[in-house]
Amino acid sequence: MKTLHLDLGERSYPIYIGDNLLTRADLISPHIAGARVAIISNETVAPLYLNTVAGTLAGFRPISIVLPDGEKYKNIETLNRIFTGLLEARCDRKTTLIALGGGVVGDMAGFAAACYQRGVPFIQIPTTLLAHVDSSVGGKTGVNHPLGKNMIGAFHQPRCVIIDTATLNTLPDKELSSGLAEVIKYGLIRDQQFFAWLEQNMAALRARDAQAMSYAIEHSCRNKAEVVAADEKETGVRALLNFGHTFGHAIETGTGYAWLHGAAVAVGMVMAADLSHRLSRLQPEALRRIEALMKQAGLPVRPPALRAAHFLELMAVDKKAREGRLRLVLLHAIGQAVISDEFSPALLKETLIHCGLSA
Amino acid sequence: MKTLHLDLGERSYPIYIGDNLLTRADLISPHIAGARVAIISNETVAPLYLNTVAGTLAGFRPISIVLPDGEKYKNIETLNRIFTGLLEARCDRKTTLIALGGGVVGDMAGFAAACYQRGVPFIQIPTTLLAHVDSSVGGKTGVNHPLGKNMIGAFHQPRCVIIDTATLNTLPDKELSSGLAEVIKYGLIRDQQFFAWLEQNMAALRARDAQAMSYAIEHSCRNKAEVVAADEKETGVRALLNFGHTFGHAIETGTGYAWLHGAAVAVGMVMAADLSHRLSRLQPEALRRIEALMKQAGLPVRPPALRAAHFLELMAVDKKAREGRLRLVLLHAIGQAVISDEFSPALLKETLIHCGLSA
Repeated sequence: MKTLHLDLGERSYPIYIGDNLLTRADLISPHIAGARVAIISNETVAPLYLNTVAGTLAGFRPISIVLPDGEKYKNIETLNRIFTGLLEARCDRKTTLIALGGGVVGDMAGFAAACYQRGVPFIQIPTTLLAHVDSSVGGKTGVNHPLGKNMIGAFHQPRCVIIDTATLNTLPDKELSSGLAEVIKYGLIRDQQFFAWLEQNMAALRARDAQAMSYAIEHSCRNKAEVVAADEKETGVRALLNFGHTFGHAIETGTGYAWLHGAAVAVGMVMAADLSHRLSRLQPEALRRIEALMKQAGLPVRPPALRAAHFLELMAVDKKAREGRLRLVLLHAIGQAVISDEFSPALLKETLIHCGLSA
Repeated sequence: MKTLHLDLGERSYPIYIGDNLLTRADLISPHIAGARVAIISNETVAPLYLNTVAGTLAGFRPISIVLPDGEKYKNIETLNRIFTGLLEARCDRKTTLIALGGGVVGDMAGFAAACYQRGVPFIQIPTTLLAHVDSSVGGKTGVNHPLGKNMIGAFHQPRCVIIDTATLNTLPDKELSSGLAEVIKYGLIRDQQFFAWLEQNMAALRARDAQAMSYAIEHSCRNKAEVVAADEKETGVRALLNFGHTFGHAIETGTGYAWLHGAAVAVGMVMAADLSHRLSRLQPEALRRIEALMKQAGLPVRPPALRAAHFLELMAVDKKAREGRLRLVLLHAIGQAVISDEFSPALLKETLIHCGLSA
């Protein structure tokens, strides 16, 4: 087992990465403040792991709240189901919430923890690759609004993150690919060597080679933890983690959350790379390598059939926008990202059309 | 004009108290970070003051969102209307929310500010006595859940509080009385001299004597600011501000929010005083003075027709409860409060029955 530390002063916490950690009461229990836990999971993950985790935490009289599965349920109505479950079980301000599932469960359970009785502690137990390498670390929580993704939420850090790599054994292939998109992202924005390593090891990762997977997860979490430690509330460098996400969120919202997050972000990264190239920032060879690695990871590189004008409207609600002006993360090279509003609307439209959106 | 300061390190802010402050752009503008404001108000207050405030802040291209009036609308559905309004107007992460109204508007606008795009700044412009002396100061924000009052929320401090005492000229008498309940509370929990002053000046307050009112508001805000500065997140002494509130919340929830908050808290304080007396903590003479002052303030002293067993269930969801055990704020004397779980269920039931609930 490896232990990483996210350094945030009094809100610091450990990230444990290893095989078969769900039964490790010795790891989890010290991070539970009160006498009781509430496990939040979904209909897909609960049948696989809920009993195990409830058994591990039996001493804390666990209750469980099982949500429907899918990004389209990540809304204020499902959030309210968590509050109802907690209140019906008379959970008090010392109850610790346990998020057991992928990114959607983690975001919602974390946000519920931020708001329930004005804030209770919570623990992340992510069960998808995407949650292992990205969403479980860093304290961003929230839900979607029909008019925009992740528009309602809070910064609320977990007490610890338990990454059990054995949970990947039950993960469908396309969910694995979705997680790989966020892994590739770290290479693109700040770690050129890691990108090169991914080019060499993508086949092993897709075959779920334990050693390769472990390396990729640890490396991703280390990158994430460094960025979050430097800028917890996203006033600066943390925005780079949104590479590909403004385009990706437009795809997710525009398709009614029919796309997996990682697939949408993969296409978004290709589109952001295309725009970077049009701005003469990124070499054509880099653009080619990026598209090739996405394909190797089993990810799409072209957006769904949406009109460019509609796509631009969906992009406009992005949280990075300032006074009506869109800001995007762009690449100078593989491993070097910047945030910028220095691009013309015409050039952005060229990218959209080139990537296949209708005029 | 008087200026008080709530000292919370980097979250410190001023509380301005005076006549006709709604037009004081010089006071409000320095606390607005971005280029834009969104004014949140309700159907009762908006016709009275929205144009004035929008005019004062015209340079910030204000949008307005007008909510239905009343505690029964303080829920997650109404909160979502604020998010929809903000998103439709493309408000970004630098937009400052302005809460213009009573406690309900302040609690909801503040919570919306805590969650919109994971947090935007906000300013309190309270227009009721209750909001002047209590809810606008201290950063408690939130909404109700059908199973309990204020169960979902956040600590989110405003950038400043603008208390325009002229807004009291349009306040109905029973709302004035409701605010007086929270004024009396400060005397009861920590300020015996203030309680005695209130006994002498209650008639002047109900006649809206400007000087007496100003003194009462300033004194109340000073008490509130001192307590909040000592314990922002309510891990200790701040809980004393909940005197009467566990009983009061049960009345509010039990009647479907048909009672005004202050009226419910007034009865709650009498009930808590009765229990304190039964525990031999409070002298009968003090109990008599408390009931007399409530009546002088135009407040009720007996709860509505509810069954004691139901009332106890409603009390049990209180946020101060720990591991199933109720904790209440009790009085040793006028001006001296403690938080305690040292009372028998039988004695609590005696209080409920004595105060008029059915067995």
